[in-house]
Amino acid sequence: MAIRTRLTEYFGIEHPIVLAPMTLPGGVELAAAVADAGGLGLLGGSYGDRTWFAEVSEKVTRRDLGCGFVTWSVARDLGLFLEALERFPRAMMLSFADPALLARHVKEAGVPLICQVHTLDQAFRAIDVGANAIVAQGTEAGGHGMSIRSTMSFVPEVVDAVSKRAPEVLVLAAGGVADGRGLAASLMLGADGVLVGTRFWATEEALIHPLVKAKAIATSGDGTIRTSVYDVVRRREWPAGYTGRLLKNEFIEKWYGREGELALIQQEELRKVQAASECGDYGTANVTIGESVGLVSDFLHAGDLVQRMAAQAAACLALGRPNLSMGDPRVVATTA
Amino acid sequence: MAIRTRLTEYFGIEHPIVLAPMTLPGGVELAAAVADAGGLGLLGGSYGDRTWFAEVSEKVTRRDLGCGFVTWSVARDLGLFLEALERFPRAMMLSFADPALLARHVKEAGVPLICQVHTLDQAFRAIDVGANAIVAQGTEAGGHGMSIRSTMSFVPEVVDAVSKRAPEVLVLAAGGVADGRGLAASLMLGADGVLVGTRFWATEEALIHPLVKAKAIATSGDGTIRTSVYDVVRRREWPAGYTGRLLKNEFIEKWYGREGELALIQQEELRKVQAASECGDYGTANVTIGESVGLVSDFLHAGDLVQRMAAQAAACLALGRPNLSMGDPRVVATTA
Repeated sequence: MAIRTRLTEYFGIEHPIVLAPMTLPGGVELAAAVADAGGLGLLGGSYGDRTWFAEVSEKVTRRDLGCGFVTWSVARDLGLFLEALERFPRAMMLSFADPALLARHVKEAGVPLICQVHTLDQAFRAIDVGANAIVAQGTEAGGHGMSIRSTMSFVPEVVDAVSKRAPEVLVLAAGGVADGRGLAASLMLGADGVLVGTRFWATEEALIHPLVKAKAIATSGDGTIRTSVYDVVRRREWPAGYTGRLLKNEFIEKWYGREGELALIQQEELRKVQAASECGDYGTANVTIGESVGLVSDFLHAGDLVQRMAAQAAACLALGRPNLSMGDPRVVATTA
Repeated sequence: MAIRTRLTEYFGIEHPIVLAPMTLPGGVELAAAVADAGGLGLLGGSYGDRTWFAEVSEKVTRRDLGCGFVTWSVARDLGLFLEALERFPRAMMLSFADPALLARHVKEAGVPLICQVHTLDQAFRAIDVGANAIVAQGTEAGGHGMSIRSTMSFVPEVVDAVSKRAPEVLVLAAGGVADGRGLAASLMLGADGVLVGTRFWATEEALIHPLVKAKAIATSGDGTIRTSVYDVVRRREWPAGYTGRLLKNEFIEKWYGREGELALIQQEELRKVQAASECGDYGTANVTIGESVGLVSDFLHAGDLVQRMAAQAAACLALGRPNLSMGDPRVVATTA
């Protein structure tokens, strides 16, 4: 029942499921659990912080994990980036802004290069810089991204572009994929696998605050929004067009559309956000999740999640539709 | 090879493909061609214009076509709406704003009720008013809609909600579906079928201006945008949150973000837009299409499109992945 794709062949993994590089308290444990369960685990290098890197480097001795960074930010510390390539050689994922400069170092190190893209033009660029895999991310995804494309039509369009220009390049679907149905759908769209963030955020390993867990289970996918307010308050200098998808809360409601004003009292508001993060006040602190939070109804171990997702996808593919119980009136003859 | 779903059973049609109700020069011919090819053809009633209705009523004598309206607009002319229910009894689709009042008349007439929704709350409301089918439309769709949800996670979330509350209600996926891959993916997500607009817009029957045809084939899915500028210039009083997805052009570039200014000189700009529409100047006139325009590479007859989409989906489902030629390096072992 295992699903074999070019992704599983290329990385020698069991399931075509990649953990999105998220910076979380339990990031190392999460990546390790995904790898142990037969997926590909990527550590969330985020902006390229040296404290993070020192901590993670100490914990990670295995060689089968990869890493992902915010391209425009880690580019400011090439030394750290080169060390990361040595320490986490399974794959390097670059997201946000032109990957050309860093891509060269990834290729030189012989590390598989994964480029996340948000427009078709970025996909062409990823091909040009030698990406081994392209992640086509729709706007429904959690965290940073763009709002130009959604997964459903973006993935097949990238697949077609790759197919014409560089058919050996893998394509992963990202954004809105949280269960076996999404994995099966992504394969139908021509993807070789999926990159999953939000659903793995909702695992035991991710060490999510109990208050956020309850909130996540209660929240529908209607409850997220793309915004820059936390980038403004943290003075993160994102290039134009990038926003973060987060759970809507009081802080966003207050400042959305008033980013200019917020910038003026940024220091004061930053202190509030930092204090709120520490005490678990998620009306003010941010919760970074995508629309697929509406598909999250339980927290489980990441390894079990990998297995469940793969098994459900295999069942969907075998049945020609989602694996509903046979007593469900939704089940009728499927293919004749 | 035919794909049987609850949608094909319910309507007694051959393929789980529904033509989105679009107002086009060749709207009647398009709906008829889709119906003749085994899909469900919906006429685009749009705002509920009496001139349109008189014209279409004269042309359509067959009883196997349905119709769709902009709910908040057609509600102003209940007489026309009731006539439409009599003339196009195959199905009535309501989109945009609360369907409760009109839904009652649809139910009384014994016409199948299709409600298009853009949030989970709207899906619950559609169940409450007695919808027989719910169209879960993602923001990638062409024309009016919302930007809160994308198809990939919205469809399974609506499927789950329906499954719990009213399992007899059908769910259709809309937004980003333009070929058999999208249809197969939608079925994997749990949908009973798909509602397709943009791809049918790109057919011979739709009588698209030759200049727009060339533009559509050249455009990638990156080339569309959600905006209200044409609603402002036409003084269409859309409820908050609704925008239209259109091909980006000079007019949108000029007025996007300056809607207040535009409203002040609306009459003058409207004359320009109307003149531009007549002479095929699509720098100023609007082209209403979704992100899936990036998957459009040819114009064909609508009936052939229905057949092609269904056959490609069946092949995807049978293979467990898109129907690539066997020489394509993308093809490896799929399920083992």
